[in-house]
Amino acid sequence: MAPSDSKRSFVAAALLLKLTTAYLADDGTVVIPGAASYNGLNLVPQMGWDNWNAFGCSVNESLLLDTAQAMVDYGLRDLGYNYVILDDCWSIGRNASGYQVPDPVTFPNGMKYIADHLHSMGLKFGMYSSAGVFTCGKRPGSLGYETQDAEFFAANGVDYLKYDNCFNQGQSGTPKLSFDRYNVMSQALNATGRPIVYSLCNWGNDDPYDWAYTISNAGRMSGDIYDSFNRPDDRCPCTVNPCNWPGFHCSVLNILNKMAPIQSRTMSGYFNDMDMLEVGNGGQTDNEYVTHFSMWAMMSSPLLMGTDVVGLSPANLAIYSNPAVIALNQDPSAAAGSRIWRHECNDTDQYGQCEQSLWVRSLKNGDTVIALINGANSTQTMNASLSDIFLDARTAGTSKPAAQLEETWDVYDLWANRMSNEEAATILARNSTTPAVITANSTSTTRYNTTAMSYADGLKANATALFGKKVGSVPAHGTWTASIPRHSTG
Amino acid sequence: MAPSDSKRSFVAAALLLKLTTAYLADDGTVVIPGAASYNGLNLVPQMGWDNWNAFGCSVNESLLLDTAQAMVDYGLRDLGYNYVILDDCWSIGRNASGYQVPDPVTFPNGMKYIADHLHSMGLKFGMYSSAGVFTCGKRPGSLGYETQDAEFFAANGVDYLKYDNCFNQGQSGTPKLSFDRYNVMSQALNATGRPIVYSLCNWGNDDPYDWAYTISNAGRMSGDIYDSFNRPDDRCPCTVNPCNWPGFHCSVLNILNKMAPIQSRTMSGYFNDMDMLEVGNGGQTDNEYVTHFSMWAMMSSPLLMGTDVVGLSPANLAIYSNPAVIALNQDPSAAAGSRIWRHECNDTDQYGQCEQSLWVRSLKNGDTVIALINGANSTQTMNASLSDIFLDARTAGTSKPAAQLEETWDVYDLWANRMSNEEAATILARNSTTPAVITANSTSTTRYNTTAMSYADGLKANATALFGKKVGSVPAHGTWTASIPRHSTG
Amino acid sequence: MAPSDSKRSFVAAALLLKLTTAYLADDGTVVIPGAASYNGLNLVPQMGWDNWNAFGCSVNESLLLDTAQAMVDYGLRDLGYNYVILDDCWSIGRNASGYQVPDPVTFPNGMKYIADHLHSMGLKFGMYSSAGVFTCGKRPGSLGYETQDAEFFAANGVDYLKYDNCFNQGQSGTPKLSFDRYNVMSQALNATGRPIVYSLCNWGNDDPYDWAYTISNAGRMSGDIYDSFNRPDDRCPCTVNPCNWPGFHCSVLNILNKMAPIQSRTMSGYFNDMDMLEVGNGGQTDNEYVTHFSMWAMMSSPLLMGTDVVGLSPANLAIYSNPAVIALNQDPSAAAGSRIWRHECNDTDQYGQCEQSLWVRSLKNGDTVIALINGANSTQTMNASLSDIFLDARTAGTSKPAAQLEETWDVYDLWANRMSNEEAATILARNSTTPAVITANSTSTTRYNTTAMSYADGLKANATALFGKKVGSVPAHGTWTASIPRHSTG
Amino acid sequence: MAPSDSKRSFVAAALLLKLTTAYLADDGTVVIPGAASYNGLNLVPQMGWDNWNAFGCSVNESLLLDTAQAMVDYGLRDLGYNYVILDDCWSIGRNASGYQVPDPVTFPNGMKYIADHLHSMGLKFGMYSSAGVFTCGKRPGSLGYETQDAEFFAANGVDYLKYDNCFNQGQSGTPKLSFDRYNVMSQALNATGRPIVYSLCNWGNDDPYDWAYTISNAGRMSGDIYDSFNRPDDRCPCTVNPCNWPGFHCSVLNILNKMAPIQSRTMSGYFNDMDMLEVGNGGQTDNEYVTHFSMWAMMSSPLLMGTDVVGLSPANLAIYSNPAVIALNQDPSAAAGSRIWRHECNDTDQYGQCEQSLWVRSLKNGDTVIALINGANSTQTMNASLSDIFLDARTAGTSKPAAQLEETWDVYDLWANRMSNEEAATILARNSTTPAVITANSTSTTRYNTTAMSYADGLKANATALFGKKVGSVPAHGTWTASIPRHSTG
Repeated sequence: MAPSDSKRSFVAAALLLKLTTAYLADDGTVVIPGAASYNGLNLVPQMGWDNWNAFGCSVNESLLLDTAQAMVDYGLRDLGYNYVILDDCWSIGRNASGYQVPDPVTFPNGMKYIADHLHSMGLKFGMYSSAGVFTCGKRPGSLGYETQDAEFFAANGVDYLKYDNCFNQGQSGTPKLSFDRYNVMSQALNATGRPIVYSLCNWGNDDPYDWAYTISNAGRMSGDIYDSFNRPDDRCPCTVNPCNWPGFHCSVLNILNKMAPIQSRTMSGYFNDMDMLEVGNGGQTDNEYVTHFSMWAMMSSPLLMGTDVVGLSPANLAIYSNPAVIALNQDPSAAAGSRIWRHECNDTDQYGQCEQSLWVRSLKNGDTVIALINGANSTQTMNASLSDIFLDARTAGTSKPAAQLEETWDVYDLWANRMSNEEAATILARNSTTPAVITANSTSTTRYNTTAMSYADGLKANATALFGKKVGSVPAHGTWTASIPRHSTG
Repeated sequence: MAPSDSKRSFVAAALLLKLTTAYLADDGTVVIPGAASYNGLNLVPQMGWDNWNAFGCSVNESLLLDTAQAMVDYGLRDLGYNYVILDDCWSIGRNASGYQVPDPVTFPNGMKYIADHLHSMGLKFGMYSSAGVFTCGKRPGSLGYETQDAEFFAANGVDYLKYDNCFNQGQSGTPKLSFDRYNVMSQALNATGRPIVYSLCNWGNDDPYDWAYTISNAGRMSGDIYDSFNRPDDRCPCTVNPCNWPGFHCSVLNILNKMAPIQSRTMSGYFNDMDMLEVGNGGQTDNEYVTHFSMWAMMSSPLLMGTDVVGLSPANLAIYSNPAVIALNQDPSAAAGSRIWRHECNDTDQYGQCEQSLWVRSLKNGDTVIALINGANSTQTMNASLSDIFLDARTAGTSKPAAQLEETWDVYDLWANRMSNEEAATILARNSTTPAVITANSTSTTRYNTTAMSYADGLKANATALFGKKVGSVPAHGTWTASIPRHSTG
Repeated sequence: MAPSDSKRSFVAAALLLKLTTAYLADDGTVVIPGAASYNGLNLVPQMGWDNWNAFGCSVNESLLLDTAQAMVDYGLRDLGYNYVILDDCWSIGRNASGYQVPDPVTFPNGMKYIADHLHSMGLKFGMYSSAGVFTCGKRPGSLGYETQDAEFFAANGVDYLKYDNCFNQGQSGTPKLSFDRYNVMSQALNATGRPIVYSLCNWGNDDPYDWAYTISNAGRMSGDIYDSFNRPDDRCPCTVNPCNWPGFHCSVLNILNKMAPIQSRTMSGYFNDMDMLEVGNGGQTDNEYVTHFSMWAMMSSPLLMGTDVVGLSPANLAIYSNPAVIALNQDPSAAAGSRIWRHECNDTDQYGQCEQSLWVRSLKNGDTVIALINGANSTQTMNASLSDIFLDARTAGTSKPAAQLEETWDVYDLWANRMSNEEAATILARNSTTPAVITANSTSTTRYNTTAMSYADGLKANATALFGKKVGSVPAHGTWTASIPRHSTG
Repeated sequence: MAPSDSKRSFVAAALLLKLTTAYLADDGTVVIPGAASYNGLNLVPQMGWDNWNAFGCSVNESLLLDTAQAMVDYGLRDLGYNYVILDDCWSIGRNASGYQVPDPVTFPNGMKYIADHLHSMGLKFGMYSSAGVFTCGKRPGSLGYETQDAEFFAANGVDYLKYDNCFNQGQSGTPKLSFDRYNVMSQALNATGRPIVYSLCNWGNDDPYDWAYTISNAGRMSGDIYDSFNRPDDRCPCTVNPCNWPGFHCSVLNILNKMAPIQSRTMSGYFNDMDMLEVGNGGQTDNEYVTHFSMWAMMSSPLLMGTDVVGLSPANLAIYSNPAVIALNQDPSAAAGSRIWRHECNDTDQYGQCEQSLWVRSLKNGDTVIALINGANSTQTMNASLSDIFLDARTAGTSKPAAQLEETWDVYDLWANRMSNEEAATILARNSTTPAVITANSTSTTRYNTTAMSYADGLKANATALFGKKVGSVPAHGTWTASIPRHSTG
C-alpha cells in the first residue's frame, strides 16, 4: 500500500488554486483562480462501460477483460469509451490494517493485474465504493476508511472512483452534511498524488449539483435508471429536482426532465450524471434507445454503457457508435441543453403518458443543436421556431436583437448517417477485413477515431462523421417542422 | 443492575464488522463486511403481541401473563408469534442511581419475574421506552439515561425494545440528528452483551428507512395506525413518504401506500414496521382485516397482534392463524412487495375513497406473490398481466427478455384454506381434544408449527399449509383475472 | 436587579424531574416522571388581555392600569381573564450592566409599580421580549441577554413572558436550532426562582408543538392573526401545518384549520396558542366573532382579549363573558378538539371561500362538545352523526363497539344563555346596582365567578352557567341536525 | 492594504447597538436599541448601474468610466442613480499575501483609480465577490479570505459590495448555515471602518429576508432575472417563496409574485432586491418595461440599471428618468407594497399566461399608491375598491372603522408626465442647451434633482415632478376603474 504523504494534506481551497493555470506566468506572487476542473480531470464527460446495469454483483476478472477486448475490437475504445468500471461486490472485507481484500475467487490475480491489463489495451480502470459503512451490496463501505481506500485505489492503478451513498449513517439532510462527507474522500484521493476521476453517486441527494463541482468530477442527479422510456414507477416518486426521495426505477424521460431546472450546474470538469445507459438491455424500442442516447449526449451526461458489450446486437452497436452524437457529448462547450418548452398531450400510451418537448444547446463552434421529443403514442408533426431556439440569445440582456434570428440555418440530422446493421454485424463478427479502428481525418460518415484526433479537433476540422447530414434549412425568423415517430427525438 | 463493561464500547462500524461472518475462515487478517443484521437478530420480521392498540396504559402483570397463556393455548406461539411486548406506562420514575422503578401496584413482582415466566413458556419479553425526556405517556424517557435503561432491560431478561420518539427536545430535523439520538441506545444495548431486538418507533421521521439498518432491527415508517381501512383523518395529513408530519390515526391503506416509494429499504435484519395489527378490534370488516393482515405479510412488516388475544373471535383467530400468509411474511427473501400500479376509481365509499392497486413480491424459492387490492365500494373484476407482474424482471437490464413471461404459472390462493370458524371456536374453547399445537410436517392445510420446523424449511419442504390452494393458472404472456369484493385483496 | 444564583443551573431534564410530584412519597430514592407542566404552571389555558392587536406600540402606564380596572369592573377578571400583558415597545435600550431600561416617558414609574398595582387588583402582569437581537418593533431583543432579562422580569414582579421570534440571527431551520435558542430563556426564567408562565411566539416555525412542551407553557402555532373570518391573504401563504413560511395576516379559519393535524400536541401545561382574540375590533360580524371565540375555546387556545377593553361594546362583552364557553376552554381535559371532516362547498363568498366542518371534543366529565362550522355564504342545514361524533371511540382499538353510540344524548347550546345586550350595557355603565362580580354557586345563567369557584369545581358541581341550555337530544346511532347561519358555528 | 484593526472585532449585537442613536442623551449608561440599518447605510433603496445584465464578463475600465459619464450627462446621477457597480470577472487571482489581483489588461490603472475617478464625478463605486471558493465566473471567491478582501475593498475606495453565492462548499441548507457564512464578510467589512453598503446575492436561498437585516443592507430574494415579462422558464422552477431551488431566468412577474408573501421583510436599511432592471435590453415592450420599473419602485427594490446606459434609447431614458416613480421608490416609508388580490384569467398569451393583480402601498405622507397589473393578452377594465385598497387599515384591529374609507381620494397617474421621446432624444444628444441637470424646487413636471433636494424633502415640499398628474377621484366607499392595456400597470 502507498503510504499517505502528510505534506499533501492541503485544504480544499488551496488545492484548487494550486491546480489551476496561472494568468500571469511571469509574476510569481499571483495565485490563480478557478480552473475548469477541481483536479484537472474530466473536462468533457467521461465515457466507458460499467457492469452494474447488466451484471449487478455477478462480477469477475474475465467479465472485465472480455468486455475490454470487445470494446477495442468493436471500435468503441477509439470512439472514446475508455473507462472500464468495476462496480459493487468486489471486496470481501478488510485486513488488519484496514485495507480492503478483493474476493480471491472472482479476482484471483487482484486488482493491479486488471489495471495493468486494461492500461496495456489503452483503457482505464474504474472502481467503486460507498460513502457509508457498507456499499449498497453490503460490502465494506469507505466511511471512516477513506484514507486506506484511496491508497488502495491509487496503489492498484485505479483511474476512476464511483462513490455511492448507501448506509451513510444519516449523514445527510443539508448540503453541508453531504459535502463534508464526500469531501473526505476527495481529499484522500488528492492526497495519493494519482490522478483519479472522482464520480459521486449520491442520487442528487442534498443537491450535489449545487456544491460538488469543487470536490469532484461528476455527480448523479437522480435515483437509479431502469430500462423503461417513460413508465412512472412508484419507487421513483419525484418528477422534478430538487427531490426529497430520489428512489430508483427512474425512467429515461423522468431523469431527463429532472435536468431541466438544474442544467446550468453542468460545466467542464463536473458533469451531472444521468446514470448509465440502458441501450442494449431490451426494455425499449430502437427509437426509444436512440432518444435515450441522444439526450444523454445533449445534456453532457457521462456516456457509460450499461449493457453486455460482448453480446451487443448490430442495432445497438450502431447507436453506441454514432460519432456525430458522441461529438455532441464531447463538445468542449461542456454544457447541458435547455428545455425550452414541455407540453402534456392527449395521445397517451399504456401508462397514461404523453409529453412533447423542445431542447436546445449551443456548441463551442457556434452551431446549435435542437431536439424535439415526441412522447406521444403516435407520429406527430412538431415545430421549433427560431424564436424558441434562440430564446437565450433573445433574452440575454444585450439590448440588441439576437443576431441568430436574422440568419438562415442549415439543418443536419445527426442520425442520418447511422451505421447500417450490416456494417455493425460485420464489426461484431470481428472480421479483420473490416477494421473497427479507422484513421483520423477519415472521410467516413459512420466512424471516428478520437484516439487519433480529439473530438474538439475533429469538430474544428469539420470531420465528416461528426456532423450528420444536411436535411433542410430554416430561413430567418422561420420554424423547423418535423414529423417525429412515437417516443422518438427529431 | 448489570454494570456497564467499558471494553465493549466499540464504535458502530467496528461493531458491525465484528458481528459478520468471515468469508475467508483460514485467513485471520481479514475483516468481514455487512452481515444481514446489525446485531445478528431479526433476519425475518418479528412476530408477537403488543398491548398498546387495545389496552393503552391499562397494563399489569396478569394482562401479560394471561395473554401469553392464550398465545400458547391458541397455537399462536407455534405459528411464530413469540414476542410479548409491554408498551408504555410501566415506570413510575427513577431511583437515586437513575434506574427506572416499575409501578409496584401493577407489577408487584417486578419485570424479571415476567421475563422468567414468559421464557418458561417459550416466549420472549419486549419492553418500551422513548428517545426523549418522557415517554408518550409522560413516564420517564431514556434520553440521557440510555446506559441505565439498557442495563435495566438486560438485567431484567428483556429480549426486545420498542423505542419511541416523544418529547425528544427537538433533536430532529435532519437524518443526522435522529440517527445520532437513536444510535446512543443502540450502542448502549450492544454494550450490555445481551441480544435485544431494537425496534425504532420514530414514525418515519427524518426517513429512518434510509439510515436505521446499521443500528436497529426495525423502524416504524408512518404515524400510528388506527382501526380504519381507508378513512382519511386530518391528524394523519401525509399520503406519501417522505412525510414532514407523521401524525397518527393513519388508515390501513394510508400506511400501505406510504410503503410504495420506500419498499427497497426493507431488508433482512431491518424491517419497515407498518405498526401493530388492528385485526380483532372491531373497526373493519372481515374482508378489510384479511387485506390488512395479508398486506402486512406481503410487505414484510412485523406482525404484532394489537388486540385482546384472550377474547379473540373465531374469525379473527382464523386470520391471525393463516400459515400460508405467515409463511409469506417469514419468507427468507425478507423483502417488501412492490406496487406495480395504483388507480383512483369512481365507485367511491362514504369517505369519497376509491382506489385499486397491484402489488407483487418475489420469494426466495422463485415463486411470485401477487395482491390485487380493490378499494372500490363494490365487487370489481381486476386484471394482473404477466407483463406487469414480472415488470422488475422485464426491466432489470439483463439484455434478455424475462424468462418468466414465457412460462405458465399456477395460481394458488393463500386464503383458500382459511381455518373455519368452527375449527377456530374449538381452539378458543381450549378443548384438549383439539390440540392447538400440531406437529411438524403435518399435512394439515390450516395449521403450522414453526417451533418444530422453521418457515424457511417448511417452504423448502413444500409443507401443505404454507401454499394455500391452486385456483387456476396463467399462460405465458397471459393475464390473471379475478372478481374481488369491496375493500378486499385477491 | 436580582443576582443570578449559580446553584440553580440545572440541566433541563433534571429540572423537569425535580418539579414533578412523587408517586411513592415514602420512598426517598424514587425520582418522579413527567408532570403536567414543565414548571408546574398553566395547567389550563391562560386568559387575559394583550395590547398588541388594538394598540401596537402605543403603550403606556395608564393604558395598562385603565384596562385592568375595566377588567375588574366588567367582571372579566372573575371570569378568569387575569393576565394583563404589555407587548412590544416598552424598552429604550440597555444600561451598562446589560439590563433593559423602560421608556421613562411612557412608563415614568417603572415596571415594578405596574406589577404591584396589578397584583393589588388580583391580576397578574405579563411582559414581552424576543429570542433575537431585536424585538419585532426593533427594541432590544434578549438573544445573548437571556440571564439579565429573566432577572429583570423576576425583579419587577412579572408573572408571564411572551417571547417572540424576530431578528433571530438565522438560528432556525431545524427543531434543534429553535429548541436550543428558546431553551436558553426557559432555563434563565427557571433560574430566577420566580414562577413565570413562559409563552413562545415563534409562529409555529420549526414545529414547536413537537418540542416546546418540556420547556414552556404555550406556543404560537401559526403566523399572526388579523381581523378577518376567512379572507385568504398572500402574506399568510400556508393553509396547513407544518408550514415553511408562517407569515402574518392569517384569518380565523386559516388558523383553525392549521390546528387539525397538530391537535394532539395540545396538553395540560402546554397549549397551542392560536393568537390573540380579535373580538371587538370591528372586522367581523357577530356570528363570526362568536365562532372565533367558540373555536379558540374548543381548541384550548389561550384566551387573550386583543381589543380595547375599556371601549367594549355590549355585544362583544357578551361574547367575552360567556361562562359556558370559557368553561369549555378551562376544562381540565386540557385538550384540543378534532376535526372529523371538512368539505369545500359551492356557496362561496366574496373571497371565493366556502367550507364546512365538524369538530368534536371530549371533556373530563364525559360530556362531548361538537361544533358545526358553516363557512358558506348563507344558512345551511348541517348534520353530525353519532358515528362521526364518536369516531375516536369507534376506532380506539378496544375490540368492543363504542358504548357512546348506544346512548341517547341530550344536546345543550352553549350560547343559548348569552348575556343580553341590555345586561351587558348595564355592566359597561359600571352601575353599582348591577354587581359585575357574582358569588359562587350562583344560579345565574349568564355569569360565573371563577375566583370564588374554579371552573373545574363548577363543572363538577353542575353550575348552571357552565352548561348552556338543552335544545334537543339525539337517539342512539342518531344524527344531530341544525340550521346554521352564514359564517357561524352550531 | 489596510491592516486589520483587532480592536474593531465587535460581536454583531454590540456593533449594532453601538451604531444606533441614543434615546436618553443625558444618561451615559443607556445602550440604544435597533437602528434603522445595521451599519447606518441604505435607509432607502440603493440606485445605480451594474454591468452584469448587459455586459457579463466583458468589463474594463473604460466601460465603467464611459457609463459614469453618461449617467452624469443624462441627468441620471442627479435623479439618484449614484452607484456604479463592477460585477464579476475583474480578478485574476491572489498574491502571496492572499489579496486579490485585478486583471492588469482590463484594469491597467487598478481599482483605486476608478474609485477616485467616480468619486470626483459625484458617484460611488461598487464591486463584487462571492461567499464561495470561486465567484460564479470562476474567479477567486472570498470564502476563507473575507478579511483580505474586505481590506482590499476598503483600501481601494469601494463603497458597495455585491456578494454572490456560487461555489459555497455546501454551506447552506438552514438559515443558520447561510447566516453564519454571510456574517463573516459583514464583520470583515465593519472591521475596516469604511462605510460600505453590503448587498447579499444569495438568490433568496435559506430565506435571507428572515435573517439578513441585522448583517446587511439588501438581499436578493429570487433567482436571477431575465429579459422577459412573464414567460415561465424551466430553469426558474418556483413561483412562490420560500423556494428550494431559486434557479435563474426568472421573469418580471415571477419575481414580483414571489414578493407577495415576504413583503413585510423589506424595511429601512434592508431591502429585498428583485435583481437588476432589464429596461433597455430589448426583450419586452414599452408597457412591460414601464410595469417592470414601476413595480420595482413600488416594492422598494433597489433600482439598478442593468443595460447599456451609453446607448440608451429615448423611450428607455424616459422610463429610467420618471421622478414620480423614483420618488415612490425612495419614499422614507421604505416598505414594499402588498398584493391585495391576484386572479388567473382566460385571455392567455403565447405562453399560456394570464393574471391580474392589485398592489397597494402606503407612503410616509399618508398617500396611498395603487397598481393594477393586467397580465391578460388584451386591454381590460379593472377595478380597485377603497375597501380593497384600505384592507390593512380595515383589519388592523383598531376596533374603529378605517377612516380612509370615508374620504374622497384624488387619483394621480405617476406616468402622466412621462418625459417625451423628443425631450429624451435631446438629452441623449448631450446638447448643452438642454441641461440634463435641473435645479432644485424646479417646477419641471418631468425632471428632478435629488442632489439638490432629497426625495424626502421634495415630497414634503410637494415638488411638482414627484406626484404625476391628477386623473380623477374616488368617492368614499367607491371604486377606481381603469382600462389597462395588455401587460401593463395602471
